[in-house]
Amino acid sequence: MPIDADRIANDIKTIGEFTETPETGKINRTPFSHPWGRAREYISKQLEAIGCKIRIDAAGNLHARPTAISWESAAWMSGSHLDTIPNGGNYDGVIGVVAALEALRSAREDVKIAVPLELIIWAATEPAFGMGMIASRAFVGEINGNTLAELRNARGLSYVQAGAPYGVDPTKLAADKLKKSTTIGYIEVHAEEGLTMWGQDLPVACVTNISGRRQYRCELGGAANHAGSTSMHDRRDALTGAAEIIVAMEKLALELGKETVITAGRIECAPNMMNFIAGRVVFTLDMRSPAMTLLAQGDQSIQKTVAKIARQRKLDVKLELTDSRAGIDFDERVCAKMHKAARARRVEPLIDMTSGAIHDAAVLAEHIPSAMVFVPSRDGISHSSDEYTRPRDIADAVAVLLETCRDRRLE
Amino acid sequence: MPIDADRIANDIKTIGEFTETPETGKINRTPFSHPWGRAREYISKQLEAIGCKIRIDAAGNLHARPTAISWESAAWMSGSHLDTIPNGGNYDGVIGVVAALEALRSAREDVKIAVPLELIIWAATEPAFGMGMIASRAFVGEINGNTLAELRNARGLSYVQAGAPYGVDPTKLAADKLKKSTTIGYIEVHAEEGLTMWGQDLPVACVTNISGRRQYRCELGGAANHAGSTSMHDRRDALTGAAEIIVAMEKLALELGKETVITAGRIECAPNMMNFIAGRVVFTLDMRSPAMTLLAQGDQSIQKTVAKIARQRKLDVKLELTDSRAGIDFDERVCAKMHKAARARRVEPLIDMTSGAIHDAAVLAEHIPSAMVFVPSRDGISHSSDEYTRPRDIADAVAVLLETCRDRRLE
Repeated sequence: MPIDADRIANDIKTIGEFTETPETGKINRTPFSHPWGRAREYISKQLEAIGCKIRIDAAGNLHARPTAISWESAAWMSGSHLDTIPNGGNYDGVIGVVAALEALRSAREDVKIAVPLELIIWAATEPAFGMGMIASRAFVGEINGNTLAELRNARGLSYVQAGAPYGVDPTKLAADKLKKSTTIGYIEVHAEEGLTMWGQDLPVACVTNISGRRQYRCELGGAANHAGSTSMHDRRDALTGAAEIIVAMEKLALELGKETVITAGRIECAPNMMNFIAGRVVFTLDMRSPAMTLLAQGDQSIQKTVAKIARQRKLDVKLELTDSRAGIDFDERVCAKMHKAARARRVEPLIDMTSGAIHDAAVLAEHIPSAMVFVPSRDGISHSSDEYTRPRDIADAVAVLLETCRDRRLE
Repeated sequence: MPIDADRIANDIKTIGEFTETPETGKINRTPFSHPWGRAREYISKQLEAIGCKIRIDAAGNLHARPTAISWESAAWMSGSHLDTIPNGGNYDGVIGVVAALEALRSAREDVKIAVPLELIIWAATEPAFGMGMIASRAFVGEINGNTLAELRNARGLSYVQAGAPYGVDPTKLAADKLKKSTTIGYIEVHAEEGLTMWGQDLPVACVTNISGRRQYRCELGGAANHAGSTSMHDRRDALTGAAEIIVAMEKLALELGKETVITAGRIECAPNMMNFIAGRVVFTLDMRSPAMTLLAQGDQSIQKTVAKIARQRKLDVKLELTDSRAGIDFDERVCAKMHKAARARRVEPLIDMTSGAIHDAAVLAEHIPSAMVFVPSRDGISHSSDEYTRPRDIADAVAVLLETCRDRRLE
């Protein structure tokens, strides 16, 4: 059977039924939960039905290859994750798993050979254990068994405890690590989570890099006086100070340009009462840019702007850099091969894009040749029950993926 | 004994020991709690020691008069409240009760007559039962027993249930109501809760009016997309929208001038995550002004500004007026008598002020000649464990109060 959009749609629908909160319409599939296990089982059954062999590595990741492709030979890897953020949707992560499944499933009729392609399901990508991409980081050896035994989920269980019934075994972690000799490269199909592709009606994009990121925690201290009896001139209002900074950050991102974005996504105010001036406000800033120079320039402007506004308003201020992550350039050879594949399959135009979001591919890219394929998110919506990607766009991505992975050549 | 600042300081210190949270240094004295009852008992004992007679009305308010002043004769009323907001301080409300106590206590040596002055402790002024000044409103007949039986505190007890052990009896409410024939007027001594007096080192002020107030709830709806992958141009960011409005409100208050204040004190953001654009923000606005025309003008500007910013940012918007309260002018005769008293006692200058905050005096003013005396709040701080008023300033206020209430003349 050739690549089939309906089959893809059916996979996504079926996986969407495995949720801890079926009554809400929102998807909660925390790693190693029962619904998460059933979703992985569903994929396993599909893989077994087409004669794939399956193994679970010591970090709890599922690997599958066609019978004819031995575990010792070199193969492409492709996949993503089945876990969701709290109250997530049907598509994030699932698309990448289903795309790899459909590539393996259709290969026999499509390219008519056993493709050197290994499907992977990362056990935990969302930060349920307080760290994103924990499973792929464990697989590449970035974190070890001690860390997996320390990091805990909302129920207080460590990754090792929660994952044991699903194959996690820290004693075998080193032996099960990524082997470059058996891996050609990694290609992850994922929803864009932005509006660019949906807005321009582009079915598939080649992701050539991931933006760098800086995250900040900003705390402003003022005086929590009475809202009625404190004149405008006697105020040290932490919320108005935060508001002025947040507006300035938007302006700064637009000035920096080139896909630079700055977001204030989280804010807490105290005492947070209608009739009191805010005495203390804590908010976050998240800046991303494909260009390191812009990140550095943005960092300077953030420091300066926050200090200046705090000084003018006589607010105490504490600005902390909580995360700094360099941008990642994906492998040019993988991207070039994907472009060639897209032309061969007439999936055109295949534009090049930067990913503002971080994915497991960013972890793999440090170790093996990697790249990503984006498919459009309807209205740019993601991590929500409203997220949606057209099955026919995913089918186009599968075509590019399968064509790229049909042989072991990298260039 | 003449008016004694040390005795006042000792009263305040003693009452400060009655708190539900002695370990925190913050005062929690919810109405009808055990510490609240003990604070009221302390005042009762002081009153009994100087030969006052005491009664509790059906709304739970304590009244005390010198033995020589019969309940049927006309007397001035003065007092305030002993309940605090959560994590409050030692002064708010307590000052007014202790000032009236000190006036009665010192009268025998000071004015050497039985003063026609009735001390009152309002049972609940802070909104522990979801409504401010509930006890004085019940006393003047603004709310009835049904309302007292409906409004509940954080423990789920109604005002009637919680207050029964302390004298609340809804069946007698009508009979116990304020009688104009036995009341000359009401004078409440209170901390300014602003910086004007402390900044200018004024010991006492005559409050001639209370600002009108309009409160709003503003809800902005945007799109909660990914902070990394959504370009600045594709955003509908509810928090940046709220920030722009909050900054504009500050500018508006300064433009309206004349003691007009606008405060955004409360904000809630969803999903409130560092790496997500805010999809929904709810915040409050509290506008106060002594001039009704400015309130009306401010209202128009708020509506216009909120609608304009929401439109420009393509945000859904819902702006609700949640409270509207006209300003109150206190009685000119009471104010004139207080000025005369201040001159007689050499408490000068006695400036006239507007209260931006609402007090029980605002409830009484609708029914009997009323006014207030303000004493300075250190650094403008109130409703906090850092609030402080100098005992000598309170002693000056007592002198004005006692001199004003030494006879039954209103002019």
